[in-house]
Amino acid sequence: MTKHFGDASVKFENPPVIISAAAIVGPKEGEGPLAALFDKISDDILFGKDTWEQAESELMRQTVELCVQKSGLSAGDVQYILAGDLLNQNSGSIYGARSFERPFFGLFGACSAMGMAMSLGSMLIDGGFANYVVASASSHFCGAEKTFRFPLELGTQRAPTASWTVTGDGAVLISATGRGPKITAATTGAIVDLGQKDVNNMGAAMVPAAADVIAKHFRDLNLPHDYYDVIATGDLGMYGLKLLKQMLSQDGFTAVERVNDCGLLIFDTQKQDVHAGGSGCGCSASVFASYFIKKLRDGEIKRMLFVPTGALHSVVTIQQGETIPGIAHAVAVEG
Amino acid sequence: MTKHFGDASVKFENPPVIISAAAIVGPKEGEGPLAALFDKISDDILFGKDTWEQAESELMRQTVELCVQKSGLSAGDVQYILAGDLLNQNSGSIYGARSFERPFFGLFGACSAMGMAMSLGSMLIDGGFANYVVASASSHFCGAEKTFRFPLELGTQRAPTASWTVTGDGAVLISATGRGPKITAATTGAIVDLGQKDVNNMGAAMVPAAADVIAKHFRDLNLPHDYYDVIATGDLGMYGLKLLKQMLSQDGFTAVERVNDCGLLIFDTQKQDVHAGGSGCGCSASVFASYFIKKLRDGEIKRMLFVPTGALHSVVTIQQGETIPGIAHAVAVEG
Repeated sequence: MTKHFGDASVKFENPPVIISAAAIVGPKEGEGPLAALFDKISDDILFGKDTWEQAESELMRQTVELCVQKSGLSAGDVQYILAGDLLNQNSGSIYGARSFERPFFGLFGACSAMGMAMSLGSMLIDGGFANYVVASASSHFCGAEKTFRFPLELGTQRAPTASWTVTGDGAVLISATGRGPKITAATTGAIVDLGQKDVNNMGAAMVPAAADVIAKHFRDLNLPHDYYDVIATGDLGMYGLKLLKQMLSQDGFTAVERVNDCGLLIFDTQKQDVHAGGSGCGCSASVFASYFIKKLRDGEIKRMLFVPTGALHSVVTIQQGETIPGIAHAVAVEG
Repeated sequence: MTKHFGDASVKFENPPVIISAAAIVGPKEGEGPLAALFDKISDDILFGKDTWEQAESELMRQTVELCVQKSGLSAGDVQYILAGDLLNQNSGSIYGARSFERPFFGLFGACSAMGMAMSLGSMLIDGGFANYVVASASSHFCGAEKTFRFPLELGTQRAPTASWTVTGDGAVLISATGRGPKITAATTGAIVDLGQKDVNNMGAAMVPAAADVIAKHFRDLNLPHDYYDVIATGDLGMYGLKLLKQMLSQDGFTAVERVNDCGLLIFDTQKQDVHAGGSGCGCSASVFASYFIKKLRDGEIKRMLFVPTGALHSVVTIQQGETIPGIAHAVAVEG
């Protein structure tokens, strides 16, 4: 166990390299502040398909295909695809990955999926089990509303603390060698549940898990609080981010001004009527695979801690009176 | 990529050791032929809880706790818990793992979950990222019927090719060192879909994936067909197993008589009215963690290939006319 540090962290001996990244999003995301950075903006929310679930699978398939294509490799060169999404039985990833015919690991961590996929993918590479893996996470606004909330046709009013599920997929191709930002360390989150029950405020449900994994990351690896230029959480939204900063401050974390949230970057929360901000597995994944990957490549960001966060409830557990367990995984990326 | 062989296989340099295993099941499984081998048989299908979903989580929690306890370790010694189940958003594993407060990877591969958990867990250990991991997979008959089929109260007649979801959890504690059967190799399955649409015949949907991963395993690692004493598939059931043997024979596989199915071992298909046999993530997991682990420890089986299989559809995708994608993961265990 030479690469394990502290309670929950690993440092990679030969840091895996992100040699390619792709992000494809839907129309609403294409009207947001990151529009110029996405590889493709579909003006069709159905991505040419008949249903929202098929649309998400097609979005996933296109994004993974493009990510591999941009690297100059072909799907056959990839040893493993690791992918997650929000739909029941991971339908978005599974039907999307089907055509690649590559070894496949389906992951469920709700909106923390990209953190899981990048952490596990990096371990497979640094462990000597693969040269190339693809990590992907997707979500679709309509599919998520149908799965977790109300029929869209009802036009149900949204709570101010509710977030807007991103229609998007972000994929990265992680390699044992090559040029690009490197994944240097990862801290794997535990399930943290402080008893929050409000599904219209998932930010609050995920904050304790985010605070926990960030604290463990710095403690396990004995890093100064200002080590990273940016700490980017998954999708806490504006209220969640505020709470996280409070929690971190109370715990003595001295670099809270460096913490930002992917859910606040992908939409203009003033103009786009998304309430608390963006969410969904595809939110942090597509923001990382467009905005952050560019900043890392350009040297604008030298080191970042990417912390996708997930709310792990289901409709059934909530209807049974259960609370919302949260989880977050931290992935360190250096340019 | 020193440990990768062929298309989809890895061989472990320092084969991880299964130092502990536990299997807990429900009343019907406790009336089957493996009754004497389970650690605990609950006569309460609700495991003391109010709902089937809570029952599955409690079953998972108890099994993981017992597995760790039997090793003489405590949960705090475990670096990662990897777990999967069939419920929407992996509720069985998530609410079950919550109280352990350990780094957690949620996996979705339907009934192939135990294969994923053991493969990834072994990679984390042999890769130097952990000393101890727990791999777990669970299912609950009532929760699965509710999620995928009809309300139990309807008493809907079952098709002859339908299987009976096992109420059970199997967990193993995999270690970098110690005494016990060793995980020597793993072949990770791709999604295989030959167009089967009948959700009452999931065995047939999973057979092509099982045949594919078994063929790759022998080819990648250049093994003689009689290398393993037993090849135990996840839960193809009696019709699926027959089909698999046909497919393997047609492909020139010369050791078909060594292939058996966990779904046929856990129930007495003549007396227990389970039609095609047992299924569910907890089927192969609990059979492995009771019946096979004992035979491996006793030397009755020297080498086995454990091949949990999964049908990756959801109710929504089937209602939309989609086919059932299958997957299977092969894990080599030597006594």
